[in-house]
Amino acid sequence: MKVEIISIGDEILIGRTINTNAAWIGEQLSLLGFFINRVTTISDTEEAITQSIKQAYTENNVVIITGGLGPTNDDITKLILCKLFDSPLSTHSEALKNIKKFVSSRGGEMNQLNKDQALFPEKADFIPNYSGTASGMWFSHENCIIISLPGVPHEMKDMMSDTIIPKLRKEFTLPVIVHEHILLSGIAEAKLAEIIAPWEDSLSDKIKLAYLPSPGIIKLRLTCITDSHEQAEKLISQAISDLKPYVQDHIYGYGLKNMEEIVGDMLRENEATISTAESCTGGNIAHILTLISGSSQYFKGGIVSYDNSIKINELHVPESTITSHGAVSKEVVEIMAQECRKKFNTTYAISTSGIAGPTGGTEKKRVGTVWIGIADSTNTYSYTFNFGNNRERVITRTSITALNLIRKLLINNKL
Amino acid sequence: MKVEIISIGDEILIGRTINTNAAWIGEQLSLLGFFINRVTTISDTEEAITQSIKQAYTENNVVIITGGLGPTNDDITKLILCKLFDSPLSTHSEALKNIKKFVSSRGGEMNQLNKDQALFPEKADFIPNYSGTASGMWFSHENCIIISLPGVPHEMKDMMSDTIIPKLRKEFTLPVIVHEHILLSGIAEAKLAEIIAPWEDSLSDKIKLAYLPSPGIIKLRLTCITDSHEQAEKLISQAISDLKPYVQDHIYGYGLKNMEEIVGDMLRENEATISTAESCTGGNIAHILTLISGSSQYFKGGIVSYDNSIKINELHVPESTITSHGAVSKEVVEIMAQECRKKFNTTYAISTSGIAGPTGGTEKKRVGTVWIGIADSTNTYSYTFNFGNNRERVITRTSITALNLIRKLLINNKL
Repeated sequence: MKVEIISIGDEILIGRTINTNAAWIGEQLSLLGFFINRVTTISDTEEAITQSIKQAYTENNVVIITGGLGPTNDDITKLILCKLFDSPLSTHSEALKNIKKFVSSRGGEMNQLNKDQALFPEKADFIPNYSGTASGMWFSHENCIIISLPGVPHEMKDMMSDTIIPKLRKEFTLPVIVHEHILLSGIAEAKLAEIIAPWEDSLSDKIKLAYLPSPGIIKLRLTCITDSHEQAEKLISQAISDLKPYVQDHIYGYGLKNMEEIVGDMLRENEATISTAESCTGGNIAHILTLISGSSQYFKGGIVSYDNSIKINELHVPESTITSHGAVSKEVVEIMAQECRKKFNTTYAISTSGIAGPTGGTEKKRVGTVWIGIADSTNTYSYTFNFGNNRERVITRTSITALNLIRKLLINNKL
Repeated sequence: MKVEIISIGDEILIGRTINTNAAWIGEQLSLLGFFINRVTTISDTEEAITQSIKQAYTENNVVIITGGLGPTNDDITKLILCKLFDSPLSTHSEALKNIKKFVSSRGGEMNQLNKDQALFPEKADFIPNYSGTASGMWFSHENCIIISLPGVPHEMKDMMSDTIIPKLRKEFTLPVIVHEHILLSGIAEAKLAEIIAPWEDSLSDKIKLAYLPSPGIIKLRLTCITDSHEQAEKLISQAISDLKPYVQDHIYGYGLKNMEEIVGDMLRENEATISTAESCTGGNIAHILTLISGSSQYFKGGIVSYDNSIKINELHVPESTITSHGAVSKEVVEIMAQECRKKFNTTYAISTSGIAGPTGGTEKKRVGTVWIGIADSTNTYSYTFNFGNNRERVITRTSITALNLIRKLLINNKL
C-alpha cells in the first residue's frame, strides 16, 4: 500500500518552515503498515500542484496533500482539486456551521473569505476541522484516495487522528504491526547501544528496533510485524523482560507518555504535591508540569528566582552563601529546595541553578554546569551535571532530569 | 534557474529524521536567487533513485542529491549516478588522501570499505569532504548540473559553503531576490486578509506575498525579485510604508526575531525590568523570556501562583476577592500584577489567570477565557480574551499577547 505525501508551500521550499508535517504523517502511516513511497514538496503554483497530484495518484494508493487551503488568494489547492476531478463546489452546511462556530468563539465576525471556505467539492467526502476554518477533502479517483488537509500542524494532526486514520483503517486491509516504546533517561545513546548490544543481537527477527533520542531522553521503539496481535504482544513483552536486566535503572516508563505525565500520575496516586524553585530552567519545569490538564491536583506553584535578589528575599538563601559558594552550588540549591517546600507547603520541592549558556561559564564552572536540589519532609538531596553548551538543551535536560529524580524518590522513598 | 533537492533515506520518509538538510539547502540557494522548484524525498532503492534523478534533470537547471554515499551496502547513489551518466570509476588520489587523513585522525585504520570510498566517477568534478569519508560529485548532463553530497548535515553544509555555492555563483547569472518579514499579533488571518486586501491588490508585481501564521502571530513575507538589491530594498520599503496605515497597531516587528526577543531588546534599551505572576500560563512567560541568553539583564523573576493559596499567601489577593469574582477575573489579575511588581521590585509586571482547558469551563466563563494584567509604576491595566479550547495554544497565545501588551506600553507609555 503505497503512499505519497505532497507538501505545498514556498515557505518549506525556501527553508523558512521545516517540513515536520510530512515527518509526522510519514510516521503515523508507516506505523499503520503503509509504505511511504515519496514525499514531495512543491511551490503553490497551479502548474506544480496539478502535475504533482497527477503523477502521485498514478503511482500510489493514497496521496496526502497538506497546505494551500487557507482563506487567502495564495491558497489554490481546493480549486485545483475541483478542476482535476471535475467537481462543482457548493456550500457545505456542516463546514459552514464549523466555521461560524470557530469564528464566533474567537469573537470575530464571518466575512466573505470565511463564507468562501464553506464551499466544498460535491465529489469529495467531508473531513471536519474543529480547530480551524479549512475543511479536509477525501477524493477517490482511479483506484487512489487523494486527501487534502490544511498545513497548520495542529489542525492537520487532529484531522488525521480523528477522521483520516480511522477511515484508512476501514478502507485497507493492513498487516498487523504492533509498536511499543521503552522510555529511558540518564544515559547517552552510544553508551546505551554498547550496553544492550547482546540483547539487540538476540532479538527475534520479527522485531525491528529504533533509537529515538531527544534531549534527556531515549525512546527505544520495538516494531513487530506478524500475523496476529497475540503473537506480536507476546514477542514484545518477552523482548522487554529480556532488556530489563541491562538497563532497569534507566527505564522510566513505556508507551508514548512523557516524563511530566508519568511523574504527574505518580504524584496524584500518592496524593502528593510539588512546587518548584527555578533559576537556570527559568520556569520551564512549572511550564511542562502545567501543560498537562489536571496538574492543579498536584502542582501548587513555583518561583522563578532568576535574579540573586529573589533567591535571597524570597527563598532566604543567605547572601554570604551565594558569595562564598556561588549561585550555582550545592549549598544554594539545597536551601532553595527546602525553602520552596516550606513556602508552598508541598510534599516535594525541586530547585535548579546552572549556567545555561552560551555565556557565563568560568574555568571552574563551565557552561552547562547545573545543580538540582530535591527536598521532601525529611531529606534534601542535591546533584550536579554538565548538560552541554546549547541553552535550550541545557534547560530541557535539567527539567527532565529533575522530574526523573522525583520519580525515583516516589518509588524508593529515598534517593 | 530551477533547482530540485532530492533527499534519499527511509528514515526521512518514516519521520524518524526530520528533513532539515533540504530546508537548509533550500534557504541557501533561494537567498542566492535560485528558484527552489521541488524537494523530493525517496527510499534508497535503485528504482526510486534512478527515476527521481532522471525526472529532476529534465525539469531543472540544478539537482542537489543528499544521502546514500556511506560505506555500507545500502549506499548506492554513486553506482546509480555512474550508470546513469555512463561514467567509469577509478581511485581518486585526493579522495584517498582525505579519507586516510580522516580515518587516522579518528585513530582508525583503512579497511576495504574506506578504499572503495576513494573510487570516483571519471566524468564528475571532485568535491572534497574534509570532515567525512564520502566525497561529493558534480556532473553536467543535458544542460543540468547534478550534485551528489553525503546526508550527514555538517559534512553536507561544509561542502556546500566551501565548494558548491562558490562554484554555482560562477556558473550562473542569478537574479536578485530579497525577502522581508512583517510580524503581526492580535489579529486573525482572515480578518487581516480582509483589511489589507486593497494593499495586496496594489502591490508591485515584482513582490510576492505569503501569510505564515502560528499561534498568536502572523508573519507576512514579502519576496521581491528584481535586477538590483537597491531596487528590491526600495520596493519592499515602499510596500511596508503603504501597509502601515492598515495595520500599524498589529505590527510588532520585522525580520526573523520573535516577540520575546523584541520585547527583551526594548526592555534592555529602556533599562527597564520585568517580573511575572502566572496562573494559567504556568511559568511559560518566564520560560520563553529566559530562553534568550542575556535575559537576566531585564527579567528578575516570577511566581507561578497555580493554586489559589499561592495567590492569597504570596500575592496578597484577598480570599474574598477570589470568592466573589472568581480566580479568573479582572480584580484578581490586577492585584496579582501590582503585588508581583512590588514583590520583585521591577519596572513592569505581567499577570495571567485563565481557563486553559480542556476542562474547567463554566457557562459564564468558557474554556479559553483569559485575563491578563499589566502593572507599571502608575497604572494597572487588564484585558480579557478567549483563546480557544486547546490547552497548549491557550498558553502560547496568552504569553504572546501579554508580551505584546508590554511592548505597546514601552512604546506609548500607556495602554
